[in-house]
Amino acid sequence: MFRASLDDAKNLKYIIESVSDLVDEAVLFLKRDMLSMEACDPSLVCKIELDLQSSFFTDYKATEERTIGLSMSALRKVSRRILLGDGMFMELNGGTMDFTLQSSIERQFQCMLLEAQEEVLPTIDVEYPVFIDMDVSVFKEGVRDAAIVANSVLFEVTPEEMIISAEGDTERARIRITSTNESVKEFRVKEACCSRFNLGYLVSFLHSSYISDSVHIYMGDKNMPLRIDFPVEGMRLTFYLAPMEL
Amino acid sequence: MFRASLDDAKNLKYIIESVSDLVDEAVLFLKRDMLSMEACDPSLVCKIELDLQSSFFTDYKATEERTIGLSMSALRKVSRRILLGDGMFMELNGGTMDFTLQSSIERQFQCMLLEAQEEVLPTIDVEYPVFIDMDVSVFKEGVRDAAIVANSVLFEVTPEEMIISAEGDTERARIRITSTNESVKEFRVKEACCSRFNLGYLVSFLHSSYISDSVHIYMGDKNMPLRIDFPVEGMRLTFYLAPMEL
Amino acid sequence: MFRASLDDAKNLKYIIESVSDLVDEAVLFLKRDMLSMEACDPSLVCKIELDLQSSFFTDYKATEERTIGLSMSALRKVSRRILLGDGMFMELNGGTMDFTLQSSIERQFQCMLLEAQEEVLPTIDVEYPVFIDMDVSVFKEGVRDAAIVANSVLFEVTPEEMIISAEGDTERARIRITSTNESVKEFRVKEACCSRFNLGYLVSFLHSSYISDSVHIYMGDKNMPLRIDFPVEGMRLTFYLAPMEL
Repeated sequence: MFRASLDDAKNLKYIIESVSDLVDEAVLFLKRDMLSMEACDPSLVCKIELDLQSSFFTDYKATEERTIGLSMSALRKVSRRILLGDGMFMELNGGTMDFTLQSSIERQFQCMLLEAQEEVLPTIDVEYPVFIDMDVSVFKEGVRDAAIVANSVLFEVTPEEMIISAEGDTERARIRITSTNESVKEFRVKEACCSRFNLGYLVSFLHSSYISDSVHIYMGDKNMPLRIDFPVEGMRLTFYLAPMEL
Repeated sequence: MFRASLDDAKNLKYIIESVSDLVDEAVLFLKRDMLSMEACDPSLVCKIELDLQSSFFTDYKATEERTIGLSMSALRKVSRRILLGDGMFMELNGGTMDFTLQSSIERQFQCMLLEAQEEVLPTIDVEYPVFIDMDVSVFKEGVRDAAIVANSVLFEVTPEEMIISAEGDTERARIRITSTNESVKEFRVKEACCSRFNLGYLVSFLHSSYISDSVHIYMGDKNMPLRIDFPVEGMRLTFYLAPMEL
Repeated sequence: MFRASLDDAKNLKYIIESVSDLVDEAVLFLKRDMLSMEACDPSLVCKIELDLQSSFFTDYKATEERTIGLSMSALRKVSRRILLGDGMFMELNGGTMDFTLQSSIERQFQCMLLEAQEEVLPTIDVEYPVFIDMDVSVFKEGVRDAAIVANSVLFEVTPEEMIISAEGDTERARIRITSTNESVKEFRVKEACCSRFNLGYLVSFLHSSYISDSVHIYMGDKNMPLRIDFPVEGMRLTFYLAPMEL
């Protein structure tokens, strides 16, 4: 038996928006103390990890652990119907996961379970030399600035600053965020790093940025994936992105 | 001679939006006490009836009764130029119907009259076993919930509740509105009914939903058309929709 | 050396929007007391002239006069990143014009200089028999009214009124603005004029209308170009549009 409910399903709406942009199917782990999700995009360039602690939900009950597959395009359709202030109740029922949206009336959506894929997704366990905690809005605008100029972006970090830059045929963008900027809460750099990433993926990650006021950026040298977290009480939402050739 | 004016043309704007979505040409009856309109979509799946009483208008004068045809795409262009708070004056002039929008300046649009079609539109006179008067917003969201999942929707009504449901390949939606829900003002059911309808038409009808806080739903068994009214003082706007195979 | 800064780059954003709609490249004259721009659309139907006085800028310094070319599509990309309240600093640096947007962080865009075209753009020096100063919103709505009906618009001006009209296959629009209308500040007509213009160009000009509350319209007989100014303190933004066959 699996059941969970939320008083306000808004954050879930944003997360599904972001994940469904990147992934066709997701594997959900219905555990006793949390609902976890893992998914990779088809080209294995990015990985998404989501842990929703039981405390994230208003009610949460899983009497047996289970792994299920869900179509992200089906979930996206449901998420589009989450209106401002809607509560959500989700329940596993035979071959479907049922989502009930609760406002003055009840609206129920059933999504058919898919075979959870056998393949084991890669585990990423890295010690990062760079950690930055900053206002999500400033990081988001920086990425958007870069995105108008090119398809890839260079992140350069020194103990003093982070530079986001992109280069098109006739124009260049360069965003400089100093470690002492008011939007930066923490800026830990063991060694200067420089790495290039695909902007399309980053823009999809940022669909989730509405759930949090800040973003945690973990970075390393040119062989390490970028890690982006949007911290919210009771949950962990982590995006990994493989680097491009410099 | 035909002349009519409105202090606020907003409701007319919404109605034209809805009707022009479904119909290429409309037949207008300029009567002494009201302006009436009848139109069917080309496939005869839906019918729209509109009665605008003389009391709906600020001024209304028709000295001789007349039947005219108007292009709905021309009317739609005019309706798009109705700005918030614009008054409207309409007048029949030889071969055109002239619409004058009045804010601080006068903007006049002339639409050429079309030959009013000879063919008589079907008259629908049915006694419905189901009548529901409810908040238009709740009904609208229910229809939209169904529309993300499939192209057709099933309405099931019992004395206790109305169920709106739709079924796609991998997901299902089911909206349950009980007769005692706070959004329901009247819920009269002589016999339980069940009928299926095309969602595309329903969504077009709902463009008109902005004119009214409530919707009147008349329904019967699987051979009866659905009837949807958006009640406003001084007018009657009725949509009929033929049922699909169950 | 050329440097200029603005506390609020909003108006520049709207102007670039409008100009980039019409023109691929623009020639900028960096003069000691003002930044000027001239551009024609590829078919030479319209011409845009812009003078930004040094007083328009918070700071302005040009130590040598210079003429440069800039890609309007590159400028448009930069202008799209100007957020509400952003300051802007622009500086000529070797082969690029650098635009720095300043909010809590600095975001720099570099646009490569193009060869300033040798060809001299036509100079327009005409005495206009008609001058109208009116609310820009009223003129804008009038042009939009016409644009839904046809691709060209007729302007007819007499000492008593201005008539904007357009004629489609089955509908006609006619907007009448009397010289005594409250939206009209000045209405000087030496002789009645009538001229036809392409609506596509006019609609592009009006993207700039956000910078000003009023519009100055200069008009003449059917062989004279229309002149449209959006007056703002410290700058001149002028659009010329060649007439069509009547």
